[in-house]
Amino acid sequence: MAEKASTLLLFGATGDLSRRMLLPSLYGLDSDGLLPDQLRIVGTARTELDDAEFRARAQEALKEHLPEGFYQQGIADRFLARLHYVPLDINDPAGFARLSKTIGDPCHGVAIFLSTAPSLFKPTIDGLKRAGLACPTVRMALEKPLGTDLESSREINDAVAAAFPEDRTFRIDHYLGKETVQNLLALRFANLLFEPLWNSAHIDHIQITVAETVGLEGRADYYESSGALRDMVQNHMLQLLALTAMEPPTDFNATAVRDEKVKVLRSLRRITEADVESHTVVGQYGRGAIDGEPVPGYAEELGRDSPTETFVAIKAYVDNWRWKGVPFYLRTGKRMPTRDTEIFIQFKDVPYSIFAARGATTRPNKLVIGLQPEETISLHLMSKTPGLDREGVRLREIPLDIGLANAFSEYRRRIAYERLLLDLIEGDPTLFVRRDEVEAQWAWIDQIRAAWREKGMSPRSYTAGTWGPSAAIALTERDGISWHE
Amino acid sequence: MAEKASTLLLFGATGDLSRRMLLPSLYGLDSDGLLPDQLRIVGTARTELDDAEFRARAQEALKEHLPEGFYQQGIADRFLARLHYVPLDINDPAGFARLSKTIGDPCHGVAIFLSTAPSLFKPTIDGLKRAGLACPTVRMALEKPLGTDLESSREINDAVAAAFPEDRTFRIDHYLGKETVQNLLALRFANLLFEPLWNSAHIDHIQITVAETVGLEGRADYYESSGALRDMVQNHMLQLLALTAMEPPTDFNATAVRDEKVKVLRSLRRITEADVESHTVVGQYGRGAIDGEPVPGYAEELGRDSPTETFVAIKAYVDNWRWKGVPFYLRTGKRMPTRDTEIFIQFKDVPYSIFAARGATTRPNKLVIGLQPEETISLHLMSKTPGLDREGVRLREIPLDIGLANAFSEYRRRIAYERLLLDLIEGDPTLFVRRDEVEAQWAWIDQIRAAWREKGMSPRSYTAGTWGPSAAIALTERDGISWHE
Repeated sequence: MAEKASTLLLFGATGDLSRRMLLPSLYGLDSDGLLPDQLRIVGTARTELDDAEFRARAQEALKEHLPEGFYQQGIADRFLARLHYVPLDINDPAGFARLSKTIGDPCHGVAIFLSTAPSLFKPTIDGLKRAGLACPTVRMALEKPLGTDLESSREINDAVAAAFPEDRTFRIDHYLGKETVQNLLALRFANLLFEPLWNSAHIDHIQITVAETVGLEGRADYYESSGALRDMVQNHMLQLLALTAMEPPTDFNATAVRDEKVKVLRSLRRITEADVESHTVVGQYGRGAIDGEPVPGYAEELGRDSPTETFVAIKAYVDNWRWKGVPFYLRTGKRMPTRDTEIFIQFKDVPYSIFAARGATTRPNKLVIGLQPEETISLHLMSKTPGLDREGVRLREIPLDIGLANAFSEYRRRIAYERLLLDLIEGDPTLFVRRDEVEAQWAWIDQIRAAWREKGMSPRSYTAGTWGPSAAIALTERDGISWHE
Repeated sequence: MAEKASTLLLFGATGDLSRRMLLPSLYGLDSDGLLPDQLRIVGTARTELDDAEFRARAQEALKEHLPEGFYQQGIADRFLARLHYVPLDINDPAGFARLSKTIGDPCHGVAIFLSTAPSLFKPTIDGLKRAGLACPTVRMALEKPLGTDLESSREINDAVAAAFPEDRTFRIDHYLGKETVQNLLALRFANLLFEPLWNSAHIDHIQITVAETVGLEGRADYYESSGALRDMVQNHMLQLLALTAMEPPTDFNATAVRDEKVKVLRSLRRITEADVESHTVVGQYGRGAIDGEPVPGYAEELGRDSPTETFVAIKAYVDNWRWKGVPFYLRTGKRMPTRDTEIFIQFKDVPYSIFAARGATTRPNKLVIGLQPEETISLHLMSKTPGLDREGVRLREIPLDIGLANAFSEYRRRIAYERLLLDLIEGDPTLFVRRDEVEAQWAWIDQIRAAWREKGMSPRSYTAGTWGPSAAIALTERDGISWHE
């Protein structure tokens, strides 16, 4: 086992991610006795605060964001006592010196969590280096976005690599911290039942949906430099695809799992100018309604016209023996009718129904892995409807819940970051993204963007509160497939 | 569709089967409006009764044996009005003449249910013939036992065949009327998920258990001429085995399903003198206790020593491409600890566990089809235990209920005979046993009995309330397998 961190240094400690996710996650870990006893959490950001002020803000964040009834003063007191704060202007070496002083021995037991704008990566790392905080023993966690294309991603990764070795660089994709995503691996590789069927001979197609109901949410600067493809597909959705499609790794460890994921990412068939119009759909929401409430269009929220896509649907293929010919339909969008993230695996129908002559219809088996709003896994099988079958054999589709709900009710639902922060503190990189994965992801995404430019494709408008442009429906229906809703 | 019967003639109408099963089943069908409006039910037996007396007895049987709250006077009145009775001495032609007169046109719409001792089959059929009740349009249902070996079974079947064509001969195995047995076929053939795994490459072994807690129950005459092998294995258990092991039929109809079953029965590897001692175990219960209550041994109940087996365990093989090398362990016994009938299908373990190095153990997937005391189907999968896996990956076996309970709670549990009686009345022989099946069953059973005789094998004693002789445990444990309990 790696050495446990004794100091966790949080950049962006006053920010939204810290307040909503990181501090509540760390509190959760502490309440379960999972943080090392001596662990100090040093927050830093531009705001001038002292320890007491930071702790007060942290307490407020916990009360606001922890689940009902989970905040307990005794635990909070212990947790808040771990917190320290150092104000820092990224361009001011004096700030880094103060940080170094607060941390003490920077080459021993330090884990850093860096959540900043891409433009600040390099100066931050330079500052850490100058302050002696870039020892090769320090673990460095990086929150997205890691660049806006392959080139800028390489620049960031090069800057990080100049200070930290790859095996101590923990690139976060918080989807990998989700219980259900890890359960997908257990399901695939701890059961005989699925693996022999997990291929083009028995799987008809796979859908991955990440649907949000929110719009721009005041994140115009970020989103205008990103769009749906880079905000969602490049990272989260391709990670889900890789975990779904990968070969069995030789072990559940960082090297083996990531070796298999990157093979899938490199096997993604390039979408070129020739097929970008038939294989991708781009949309931007106009005015509409969510839950019966009118909402403005993207351009209205932004205050100007924009070529940024808020919706993308892609028909992808993984060109290898296992998946040849099996479409992976990806779609993600803002202002969809429901918040819904899922992996939907549809098996082929039975080759021949012995019940057809008795009037029964079979429906294909399905495995549905839900990530949002609830974490669920359900397997859909056909079963005989009890009865005497006077009108012919009657069959019914029954969903079997393999998820958390029925079997594991004694466990509390954790924030995905709890798992990832603990892995960072303890030094297990299995659920973090390796550089070659990020770059394979960008290589595929960049080609789509290049093809869009070459073809002059721009977003089609869709009404807020719908499932995107009608072309997205046509994308699957042309293949005789409907999106799972 | 076949023509519906307008008269159902019940032989043995005052007997135990009639009172406990047939009359309640027919009432159940009537209460659901499933019996043809004009259907008359004519009971016959040796006892001298008139219609009114028979109806009074039937009413009493319904009140005693229908589920709590299911008896309703209005429905019972309608049902009882269908009943008629003709006393009959099987050796008295006058009785058959009265029967014929009561039935009216015997060549039109008559279904007969014959439940008598094997020795009475031939005289009964002769009587029916003489009375003109053996028209080729009459459907003839036969309740077990159909003989005591292949030869006597052939005699009975020949006698039946002399009067009724095979396609109108409905041999009852009431296990085939069970909802869950039919659901096994739906599960296998309406889902893609199972069939590709349903073979020696992916299934480790199959167990079929029929355990009773009762002892002799005053059926000494019958049981002494039968024993566990002929009472349970020859019919019910081999039918369950055949349905589990058969190839996909081309259709869910009488010819196709039974063609596939008989192929399995003919593929059963003969158990000869050379391996009968290693492949079969025979037992007879001695004194013991069931549910803490002392019970006598078989010989005590009988009042004399007996060579009859009350327990048998068999390791069987189906020699064909699909099942080569997969053991089918069968066991049945009286005075077992629990009443429990099930088909237990154990898949192979995953070939290699990627989680082993993280301390997790996987258990093989299982499909458990319960017939008694409850009808259930459950699929056992491994799932990740929610949590942060600090002590290594934790996996847990979760049972998924595919049975009646969760998905179909609105349906009432029916008696297996309801389905079979309705199929008899309506003329669908799919769920009845064809002559070639019965004979293939006997051929296999006779060879076991011959091998027992040749080897001088006699039952080992086991304590009532245990799972049979210790040799039955050894039978599977030698192969590294434990009986499922």
